[in-house]
Amino acid sequence: MTKNTIRKIAVLTSGGDAPGMNAAIRAVVRACAYYHISCVGIFRGFQGMIEGDFKELGPRDVKYIVSKGGTILKTARSEEFKTEAGRKQAYKNITEAEIDALIVIGGDGSFTGALQFSKEFSFPVIGIPGTIDNDINGTSHTIGFDTALNTIIDAVDKIRDTATSHKRLFFIEVMGRDVGHIALNAGIGAGAEEILIPEENIGLPKLLEKLKKSKLSGKSSCIVIVAEGDKTGRNVFELSEYVEENLPEYDVRVSVLGHLQRGGSPSCFDRVLASRLGVKAVESILENKSGIMIGLINDQMAETKLEKAIKGEAPIDEELIRISEILSI
Amino acid sequence: MTKNTIRKIAVLTSGGDAPGMNAAIRAVVRACAYYHISCVGIFRGFQGMIEGDFKELGPRDVKYIVSKGGTILKTARSEEFKTEAGRKQAYKNITEAEIDALIVIGGDGSFTGALQFSKEFSFPVIGIPGTIDNDINGTSHTIGFDTALNTIIDAVDKIRDTATSHKRLFFIEVMGRDVGHIALNAGIGAGAEEILIPEENIGLPKLLEKLKKSKLSGKSSCIVIVAEGDKTGRNVFELSEYVEENLPEYDVRVSVLGHLQRGGSPSCFDRVLASRLGVKAVESILENKSGIMIGLINDQMAETKLEKAIKGEAPIDEELIRISEILSI
Amino acid sequence: MTKNTIRKIAVLTSGGDAPGMNAAIRAVVRACAYYHISCVGIFRGFQGMIEGDFKELGPRDVKYIVSKGGTILKTARSEEFKTEAGRKQAYKNITEAEIDALIVIGGDGSFTGALQFSKEFSFPVIGIPGTIDNDINGTSHTIGFDTALNTIIDAVDKIRDTATSHKRLFFIEVMGRDVGHIALNAGIGAGAEEILIPEENIGLPKLLEKLKKSKLSGKSSCIVIVAEGDKTGRNVFELSEYVEENLPEYDVRVSVLGHLQRGGSPSCFDRVLASRLGVKAVESILENKSGIMIGLINDQMAETKLEKAIKGEAPIDEELIRISEILSI
Amino acid sequence: MTKNTIRKIAVLTSGGDAPGMNAAIRAVVRACAYYHISCVGIFRGFQGMIEGDFKELGPRDVKYIVSKGGTILKTARSEEFKTEAGRKQAYKNITEAEIDALIVIGGDGSFTGALQFSKEFSFPVIGIPGTIDNDINGTSHTIGFDTALNTIIDAVDKIRDTATSHKRLFFIEVMGRDVGHIALNAGIGAGAEEILIPEENIGLPKLLEKLKKSKLSGKSSCIVIVAEGDKTGRNVFELSEYVEENLPEYDVRVSVLGHLQRGGSPSCFDRVLASRLGVKAVESILENKSGIMIGLINDQMAETKLEKAIKGEAPIDEELIRISEILSI
Repeated sequence: MTKNTIRKIAVLTSGGDAPGMNAAIRAVVRACAYYHISCVGIFRGFQGMIEGDFKELGPRDVKYIVSKGGTILKTARSEEFKTEAGRKQAYKNITEAEIDALIVIGGDGSFTGALQFSKEFSFPVIGIPGTIDNDINGTSHTIGFDTALNTIIDAVDKIRDTATSHKRLFFIEVMGRDVGHIALNAGIGAGAEEILIPEENIGLPKLLEKLKKSKLSGKSSCIVIVAEGDKTGRNVFELSEYVEENLPEYDVRVSVLGHLQRGGSPSCFDRVLASRLGVKAVESILENKSGIMIGLINDQMAETKLEKAIKGEAPIDEELIRISEILSI
Repeated sequence: MTKNTIRKIAVLTSGGDAPGMNAAIRAVVRACAYYHISCVGIFRGFQGMIEGDFKELGPRDVKYIVSKGGTILKTARSEEFKTEAGRKQAYKNITEAEIDALIVIGGDGSFTGALQFSKEFSFPVIGIPGTIDNDINGTSHTIGFDTALNTIIDAVDKIRDTATSHKRLFFIEVMGRDVGHIALNAGIGAGAEEILIPEENIGLPKLLEKLKKSKLSGKSSCIVIVAEGDKTGRNVFELSEYVEENLPEYDVRVSVLGHLQRGGSPSCFDRVLASRLGVKAVESILENKSGIMIGLINDQMAETKLEKAIKGEAPIDEELIRISEILSI
Repeated sequence: MTKNTIRKIAVLTSGGDAPGMNAAIRAVVRACAYYHISCVGIFRGFQGMIEGDFKELGPRDVKYIVSKGGTILKTARSEEFKTEAGRKQAYKNITEAEIDALIVIGGDGSFTGALQFSKEFSFPVIGIPGTIDNDINGTSHTIGFDTALNTIIDAVDKIRDTATSHKRLFFIEVMGRDVGHIALNAGIGAGAEEILIPEENIGLPKLLEKLKKSKLSGKSSCIVIVAEGDKTGRNVFELSEYVEENLPEYDVRVSVLGHLQRGGSPSCFDRVLASRLGVKAVESILENKSGIMIGLINDQMAETKLEKAIKGEAPIDEELIRISEILSI
Repeated sequence: MTKNTIRKIAVLTSGGDAPGMNAAIRAVVRACAYYHISCVGIFRGFQGMIEGDFKELGPRDVKYIVSKGGTILKTARSEEFKTEAGRKQAYKNITEAEIDALIVIGGDGSFTGALQFSKEFSFPVIGIPGTIDNDINGTSHTIGFDTALNTIIDAVDKIRDTATSHKRLFFIEVMGRDVGHIALNAGIGAGAEEILIPEENIGLPKLLEKLKKSKLSGKSSCIVIVAEGDKTGRNVFELSEYVEENLPEYDVRVSVLGHLQRGGSPSCFDRVLASRLGVKAVESILENKSGIMIGLINDQMAETKLEKAIKGEAPIDEELIRISEILSI
């Protein structure tokens, strides 16, 4: 590959938003300024790329956003970008704006689109993992995961107050359609009595047995954390009914935490992680790298091919499952 | 009424728990110690009274609970206390424990039971308004209301982050089956574009019209706060579908905040309010008062007959409705 | 006074910033839009008035600031505005910009300047009380007071954790040079063992005596909240040394909370209060009122002459002093 | 070493307290219950060992402490444990209580004592790194570090509000006598313009130069994070005066965050980390290990000899220093 001179980098956020995306944007913008290259923000992800919704960003344009949730560049899912015509239009806009490389902050769906675009037009693309789900290969932590966990345990601590006052059982649904990282970590953090994740189906009879045992052990409240994609075949409301029918000694309630898990001021961990990833992404582009994602492996910045990053979910940590069982005794 | 000598006071929490109940318990216990009388905690509300679930409480037993959500005395709803037999058993236990007066921390249901008990057995009872709903006559603020509002705006601020990033409309359900105090105050505090409360039915066509106008005015996200008992005849999920059908330009999401609104460390306002009410309740008993609730009127401690306190809901502030409309322009 | 037609209102923030000022600005701007008049923001208080640092503000310019600490209009103290020349220049700018009335959000210093300006040039001025100190006559609460209290008890709760773990005594300095409102309310809210305020000097021997008694009562930690302007004649560091010398059984530490008390996302109480005050201020101008402050009295919007608002400090609530003593038993 | 049968494990917390210590205690207690061995809590660290201040702990004794700051076992520094007589008395008590092994949660000072004790009496000891300073070799994170960082950025975000409103420069002192981990991470997380750490002395002239440049670049506020042990030879107050003298364009303020950095409900990261370390420590004892610390290396549980853990400070991450410079452009 011949060494390209990079004069202008574009950055966009795509897919579900995650706290810390702004910190990553800021890091990209400031690293560009530091290395004396221009930086362009693309609004609403790939859709904005197609519509030419661009804005030049200087260091002062990103002041104080390190502490802000959401993404100042907005995000969207783009059906048009899945078409060849859409991507061609995007490439046309990018070329006309004299952009030399693209940084995509998002999850696996976003990386899939970015990779295709990169290949079709031989255009330099670098990915930064931004999603609360922590389901990307090639990074121990995605941007937003840590903040979401803190948001959840804060909510569950509050629910614990009322659960204990009333001696109740709560089923609390947290995000995680395909993976249980959020449920497992938040469940351990919140001291949940039981955690239901997509990767493991303990079965309803065993759930009942464990809840019965929990009651007998003298606990005055009970919290079951349920990932959206859990494999019991029942959602939290159905689980609640099932348990009330079978364990009448329990007064059961349900809480679906929902979208508040996506928002909020990012944790220090996410801000630092996003800052490191953003700077490293710019530096990787300056080294003429492409088609990779910057991630955190063993506490160090690491590169992973986008192909590999989006291949299946990052596996659940078996140690944590074991820990959660020991702790709920 | 002849002047009774008070040597021992009992305190209980009843109905839904509210942040600040512990601060009120602490104030009762310490005021008793200050005035050299004994204090007994009754667990699980009126049910614990029937079951004799009592515990003597000294000043050190309530240390550091001023900052804790929930209630260390637990709370429960008691069907048995609605029967004469239940109340007789409760009175028997109270008498045997040589308790001279009772302080009930709770809402209107709890006050109704307390009043009946007080009348049947000519037993001194004082109420302290503890409920997040702020629906008690005779107090501008109930214990827990202020904390619940802060919890809600914190959650809505987080949802605003993601709503703005995706340019979405959110229907957010907050507590309030019969009254809109929570929805109205939290809605203004969170800068909601629309607030639906039980006291006012703007009707679905007007809702659509306002949302349409809101979109046209250039807002990049939209939050509608909905009280549980709103009068549109549709719950948040049905409202969401209705709006998606009629205003396809909106990408709509729903969030039900649920029980987390009840928990959490109480705000300073609630801690100070609960402290004042708890001390005043003890002092009122020492003045041989009974059948009253201590409340906050014009920032001062004030007495209201329990009959009056439970009579209908505290009316909504019309000024706030007006303000919310002006601000959502 | 002849009825003036108001077409354009200016708003500024002045003096120390307070959380909720942005909510007040937003309310002023939106109320102006609602009543179809123009609104101008003046940056950096009276200094910006002198320098002509103005910006037209529409409803979308203040979006989402309801939840933001600080003030988007910045604030400053202006020596120049204390001179006649300075005020003349300010009036010139105001006139040239065709501004018909001024809303000043600030404390007593700001109101003093505003009042003088109003009299000198017969110019309509309305005050909104914005200061964390709660030291303004004519309002039960100033904007920012409630948030500052929550910030402080959150900090003191954290310090309590470490104080209890080490069985230590902490002197914690909070804001309040002339008044003890912050110290007294935060002290009660945080469950402080002792509270030192400017309005009351218990004297060092009595302090020692109370701390000695507190230790004997079995408390495992001790928190003394000290207002900046307390009257013991010693600052927190000197108090700490004094107690360590005289009560060697105590391991003493000091914490000065400082400026973090001024910041942070405003509480719901402050957001609602600021919203009400901002709307009412605009409406008062439209009713051709001037020289008054809008405040909260008995939970209702109320007017107070600026002369009266700035006359001496709002007196401390004796009931709270009594409560704090009972609760620290 | 012959295989010892472990029937009873003791756990203590020692040195400065850190959020998450309670989660570690809970994990130790519950893992003991899970493996059917007894668990004894020792109060006030090594001093309580000498005084025989022990209490048997079952799974329900540690309920809900996962979310609580501080340590329910209290902590203390013990001069007596530094004497042979003190340690002999401690050993006598331990032996009489039929304790077979000891888990010490603390920092390097605590590990030094634990190691000496272990060698003198051939007594099994395992260390768990609990300190907010993150200055222990053999673990990427100590318990409490992550929470302290979040506490600090929350405080700095608040100070940023007021700094920006007034266009001020703040020197903010954070913990870190010997190492800059806290300052560096919190500084990046808070978006500080400058970070002063013990490991690097940029010198006062360069500091002035950078602050001057920062002002010229159009920043409306400036935050300098200073570790307690920074090497400029001046404390934050002296730095403030120095800058005010040399850069009169700056309005400078100082904030010393102090002990609030030690408290608060632990973050999810710290809760999960502490839970893993606590379980693993018990399991290591059951495998007859001794003289080691359990830590987190490359996101996995790892063992390090206590000798190595306490040998010098964990080195600062040079990448982070570089990042902080790029981001403050």
